Amino acid sequence: MSRPRPRTLKGFQDYLPDRMIPRSRYISKVRRVFENYGFVPLETPALELSELLLHRGGDEVAKQVFRFEDAGGRDVCMRYDFTVPLARVVAQYPRELPRPFKRYQIGPVWRGEKPQKGRFREFYQCDADVVGTDSLMADAECLRLGVDLMGAMGVEPFRIRVNHRGILDALAARLDVKGELAGAVLRAIDKLDKIGVDAVIGEVAKVSARAEDVRDYLSIAVGPPMERMGALARFLGEGGRSPLEELEEVVALALEQGVSLDSLEVDGTVARGMGYYTGTIFETRAERMPELGSVMSGGRYDGLVGTFSKENVSGVGISLGLDRTIDGLFARDDGPKTLSTAQVLVTLFDADSRRAAFDAAARLREAGIPVEVPYEVVALKKQIRSAHRRGIPHIMVQGPDERERGTWKLKELESGIERELSWEALLAALESWKEH
Amino acid sequence: MSRPRPRTLKGFQDYLPDRMIPRSRYISKVRRVFENYGFVPLETPALELSELLLHRGGDEVAKQVFRFEDAGGRDVCMRYDFTVPLARVVAQYPRELPRPFKRYQIGPVWRGEKPQKGRFREFYQCDADVVGTDSLMADAECLRLGVDLMGAMGVEPFRIRVNHRGILDALAARLDVKGELAGAVLRAIDKLDKIGVDAVIGEVAKVSARAEDVRDYLSIAVGPPMERMGALARFLGEGGRSPLEELEEVVALALEQGVSLDSLEVDGTVARGMGYYTGTIFETRAERMPELGSVMSGGRYDGLVGTFSKENVSGVGISLGLDRTIDGLFARDDGPKTLSTAQVLVTLFDADSRRAAFDAAARLREAGIPVEVPYEVVALKKQIRSAHRRGIPHIMVQGPDERERGTWKLKELESGIERELSWEALLAALESWKEH
Repeated sequence: MSRPRPRTLKGFQDYLPDRMIPRSRYISKVRRVFENYGFVPLETPALELSELLLHRGGDEVAKQVFRFEDAGGRDVCMRYDFTVPLARVVAQYPRELPRPFKRYQIGPVWRGEKPQKGRFREFYQCDADVVGTDSLMADAECLRLGVDLMGAMGVEPFRIRVNHRGILDALAARLDVKGELAGAVLRAIDKLDKIGVDAVIGEVAKVSARAEDVRDYLSIAVGPPMERMGALARFLGEGGRSPLEELEEVVALALEQGVSLDSLEVDGTVARGMGYYTGTIFETRAERMPELGSVMSGGRYDGLVGTFSKENVSGVGISLGLDRTIDGLFARDDGPKTLSTAQVLVTLFDADSRRAAFDAAARLREAGIPVEVPYEVVALKKQIRSAHRRGIPHIMVQGPDERERGTWKLKELESGIERELSWEALLAALESWKEH
Repeated sequence: MSRPRPRTLKGFQDYLPDRMIPRSRYISKVRRVFENYGFVPLETPALELSELLLHRGGDEVAKQVFRFEDAGGRDVCMRYDFTVPLARVVAQYPRELPRPFKRYQIGPVWRGEKPQKGRFREFYQCDADVVGTDSLMADAECLRLGVDLMGAMGVEPFRIRVNHRGILDALAARLDVKGELAGAVLRAIDKLDKIGVDAVIGEVAKVSARAEDVRDYLSIAVGPPMERMGALARFLGEGGRSPLEELEEVVALALEQGVSLDSLEVDGTVARGMGYYTGTIFETRAERMPELGSVMSGGRYDGLVGTFSKENVSGVGISLGLDRTIDGLFARDDGPKTLSTAQVLVTLFDADSRRAAFDAAARLREAGIPVEVPYEVVALKKQIRSAHRRGIPHIMVQGPDERERGTWKLKELESGIERELSWEALLAALESWKEH
């Protein structure tokens, strides 16, 4: 039997431990932020009936999704986001879930996009959504939680750029375009960062004779909340009144919840691709990493749940671009370097000292300090070299002298500093190091 | 457009928050145990080339796997375990990974088995493996780690039943069967718990004239380590010598590492279905939940990595049946009941008190105490009812009187106990509650 060459499927990747250790730390932090605001975890299957997942997705989604027939002849596909499954869950269990329902979901989704640098066909989404309230306090809470997310990821400074779908609708009305054509305007504006003003105007000109109005709009649409609000109101007139009032309230509530004005911006050019948004929309720029585009986004959508039930339930949510952000941090050498989960290698001095080493290891583990013990009694030098290579920051040695005195030598490998310590002092030293 | 009925794909399930909250707590605990022993996380893709995943799987695997052609015409399948991907990774990155390589992986795998009570087509595996050492100390470490896993899951008392594949080989030799026929003997013994001794003998009789020897074997094969070892040695003679010596050493090393004799048993009837084991094998019975079968198992395999590379690298691993164990605990009402991640609802007394409520929420969150704030200022009764329904254990109220005194009322909803507390006392009360 010939041996197949080991390789990863095109568009997919392995997270080896040097990347997975920090990544799983980040995921824990994100989870903690979501839970800090009372969001509860939900887990939906990787596979769903295509009839459900693709019911409202549109052509773009249908083209990208991994779809096949299962052994029972069912037409199924792999989930491509967490929002449609959330809509299904809310419709499927009307009695089991409280309202408002605040849930988060963290995990992989799959899209058969053309693989390119930094884009994979399997990637994590980290979503928190509030379903079943129209209160704008929920929109503001998403922004406030977003500030904590950026803090947890170490992405500072950052700017959350807020807009309202109704403002873009008012702009479309002024341009005299509707429906699919209004969608084209939206998508053109969505590309502003990538293609520039002139190209945007060019695209809009294909569907509206008043494309130059968009130039005026873009020139006044971005800036600190209060001034922009006034400028947008003058530009849009009566058609912009109600969405601008809502946006103003969301901003005021966000400030009340503790979002700083430095990290908040009203930006009429934020459009969000997805068709389902109906109110607040936002994106986030990491100031030191503009090349990443938006690292965190979201908004309010109405009627999504209505896809699967008569009830019309509205929702608002926030989504973190976890892998994109981590890749950005690592590309800048800002990410933590960790090769090892163990903080200390308890060396084996000789066969007789095994029992003492295992006892020490067990006591450290009980104290929450991860520990490795080698699998073989080999030369101490070799054990230390192995700790080095595995990225374990400390080693402990107990030779016959230390054993007699009931002490251990603790050596920090990077600095080379070595100390002989009593058990209590050793524990304290490792505990304090854990806090780093 | 007609509305599709919301439903889950056959064989799949949603984890709603009432199940997902405790489940994600358990997963964190399992991860902590793995890391406590220095295992590092690895994440491999959900999809792999069928050529690789199915290269050595056998018919059983090929029948169960979700397999399809991706949009690029590649024959792919969804991972059905973590062991084959581990073998691929070790072969694919020979330089990047240290030896021995201690990795863990926690996540879903997919098998198109016939759905039945408690069996789903998507389920989590929690695996830790040591690759690249022949030292039996690694086998013993898996057993020691298993004790911690059982403790973390709250499955006590339990019994780890250890065997060695070579002992079963010696038995097969005594029965004069080889190859595929020896496999049939193994599979028959593997079913002992389900079908009983007579049915096992019946199955063995189909391939060996000496089936009655199996009855003698089964009668002496189970019990405390030391006695069983002697009985097995007498029964198997020279053919059992080397595997029995290895098994004896594994047991001795496990005891040295702190495994208690109460939770360890030598059991010659443990066979493990998977063909790839070559040395130590073990299963674990939860004494209070024998109906679950084995909740944790593993063993030593050689040559698995050789599937993908010239090198012959051995490994030993342990796998926890997470969902099976949790379902067992919940069926016995032994699982924790938690509907909420928030520990306290900071109520909104009136519109003027919003700011104070948000300040308090932010300070509590900073202290690591998860908090909810309602999205609307409604009657206090209604807010409390909502906290109840959401399973939030405490509420905080600050009316005009408390505001003037700079205090908060803290009410524990279950007991009804209400106290007026200074900020410091409040924080201390919630902190101490967090420890529960």
